[in-house]
Amino acid sequence: MVKKLSIADIANQLNVSKSTVSFVLNGRAEEKRISKELVNRVEKFVKEVGYTPSPIARGLRTGKSNIIGLMVESISDPFFADIAKLVESTAYKKGYRILYCSTDNDTEKTRALIEVFRERNVDGCIISPPVDVGSEINALIKAGMPVVLFDRNLPDAGADYVEINNESSAFNAIRLFIDQGFKNIAFITFSSLQTQMLGRLSGYKSAIGQEGMEAHVLEIDYNPDEDSMIKTVNEYFSKNKNIDAVLFGAVQAGICGLKALTQLGLKIPEDVAVISFDDHDVFKLFAPPITAIAQPIEEIAGRIISLLLERLNPGQSHSQSQKIVLNTEFKLRRSHVNKHLLLGKV
Amino acid sequence: MVKKLSIADIANQLNVSKSTVSFVLNGRAEEKRISKELVNRVEKFVKEVGYTPSPIARGLRTGKSNIIGLMVESISDPFFADIAKLVESTAYKKGYRILYCSTDNDTEKTRALIEVFRERNVDGCIISPPVDVGSEINALIKAGMPVVLFDRNLPDAGADYVEINNESSAFNAIRLFIDQGFKNIAFITFSSLQTQMLGRLSGYKSAIGQEGMEAHVLEIDYNPDEDSMIKTVNEYFSKNKNIDAVLFGAVQAGICGLKALTQLGLKIPEDVAVISFDDHDVFKLFAPPITAIAQPIEEIAGRIISLLLERLNPGQSHSQSQKIVLNTEFKLRRSHVNKHLLLGKV
Repeated sequence: MVKKLSIADIANQLNVSKSTVSFVLNGRAEEKRISKELVNRVEKFVKEVGYTPSPIARGLRTGKSNIIGLMVESISDPFFADIAKLVESTAYKKGYRILYCSTDNDTEKTRALIEVFRERNVDGCIISPPVDVGSEINALIKAGMPVVLFDRNLPDAGADYVEINNESSAFNAIRLFIDQGFKNIAFITFSSLQTQMLGRLSGYKSAIGQEGMEAHVLEIDYNPDEDSMIKTVNEYFSKNKNIDAVLFGAVQAGICGLKALTQLGLKIPEDVAVISFDDHDVFKLFAPPITAIAQPIEEIAGRIISLLLERLNPGQSHSQSQKIVLNTEFKLRRSHVNKHLLLGKV
Repeated sequence: MVKKLSIADIANQLNVSKSTVSFVLNGRAEEKRISKELVNRVEKFVKEVGYTPSPIARGLRTGKSNIIGLMVESISDPFFADIAKLVESTAYKKGYRILYCSTDNDTEKTRALIEVFRERNVDGCIISPPVDVGSEINALIKAGMPVVLFDRNLPDAGADYVEINNESSAFNAIRLFIDQGFKNIAFITFSSLQTQMLGRLSGYKSAIGQEGMEAHVLEIDYNPDEDSMIKTVNEYFSKNKNIDAVLFGAVQAGICGLKALTQLGLKIPEDVAVISFDDHDVFKLFAPPITAIAQPIEEIAGRIISLLLERLNPGQSHSQSQKIVLNTEFKLRRSHVNKHLLLGKV
């Protein structure tokens, strides 16, 4: 392994003082009246040897911790685990460490964790918030802490946020079913007042309502005991044998739903056609592969970090909060197809 | 929502002083010569009203942060995400918060994160370490930081650790294949010097060696670009058409493997029988369901926390490090069965 270069090594090689190198690297060359020629020499050398300043050392100089706190709803949810991983690797390249934690969608726990991050002196926070922590988040922002929300917004919080077009994604999925002639289209989702879940429900209802069709909504109470959620879905399909298509409102609802349909021996898409929010290995490898509304995970992670870095760089910052809404992508596989339509039975 | 009781509320209700309540709750009653009768009254009342002391307030009194740092290899790996979630919820019930981060199996990053945790004043660390951070971990322990390792051990670190019986689990999986008459049994795994991966490889080689069979080992270099790993597995099966059974050495190897086998149109178990380390929704929902070597995730998380809490409670602590080895469970499904044997063709 090559020994990492220090500022002293660079100064030595260029035959200048350590403080000169340090001023150049910290953007204080002009203030310190260091010649343009010398700045160029230092920058060229640093680029050649691939020197990156130690975030901890920089933190000691700047009073910043170079640590970002990331709060997700549940780290064992594959959507959040993927986002956390991508946010972390993107931030790491920019010299930031990420510490994460799960809120379990528990307001008290979230408040306590916000305190933990504040006390630990993080530079900024990224949060997928439960519904009623708006005032805590506003207090954080007021105290000068940059905050970016994602996945769901808090209407009463003045934070930057990144989300997807939940309403139109659900609307388009239901249109895909309607246009193929499905008649009894269900929406199975988690019971939630979060904005993204309300958006998905609203998209479903608009599409169904436009056609004068009957809405069939099952809202499951999230339960860490998956078997009880599978049972709920199982009972729903057992009692509602007319359902011929279903949109699952989140990845974990989709996985529970596939387990319930498998238990019942119902064929996809012959007995029930399926689309699920979020993409997952289970959907790719299921027989038949499940059509999914994929979130642009990499773009979400990238935008979150960009928004936060803008706030962390006071020169570029501005007071108004930014809202970024990204588009989902339909992964059209085989589970949403109306086989009867293809066979001319409708 | 019920307002949370404070120590002042309890003191008020019991008509005693706040400091009396505080001493009882902090286990200092004897030291402060508080009568057994009064201790009982306070404890009974606290139990009735379900009071739990605020960890932050307790931290201010004790100088402890009540925060535990958890470092996993990659939070987007479902095994680590599940462990992190369970460790967090178990610790939360005991009054501890967990902050986690991913090492990406990168030694430099791990060293930096160990520094982050140390500077943030965490009370203890739980780490699934890359191979060469033994000296950093010993330095942490020497500085008085309780450390528990899991998933893999560092032979040169004197830390407590929790792992599974990797060698015998792999051995038994291969025996299951051999006893059914499979002749060309492959082991597809990640290239790694970590103890758990060496243990699995060694178990495979023992079982194969005992029978005088030829070893077929494919070690994939882990790559965040999954497609390149799938391609490697795909090419391996294309070139080695005699392979009739395969053990995948980790959940992500198993998922890549199933994708490769699906691409190749190979039937499981007719063309290739399959067992994978770790259990996952993909294995449960695949057609046919995949036989898995399930790690006892809940017990692993429970033991990690117990070991750490023992170290955090100096009264119970002891100098010798503890090694806990837990048993895996075979989830016998349909992918490991020799159909030819069943049909009397062998």
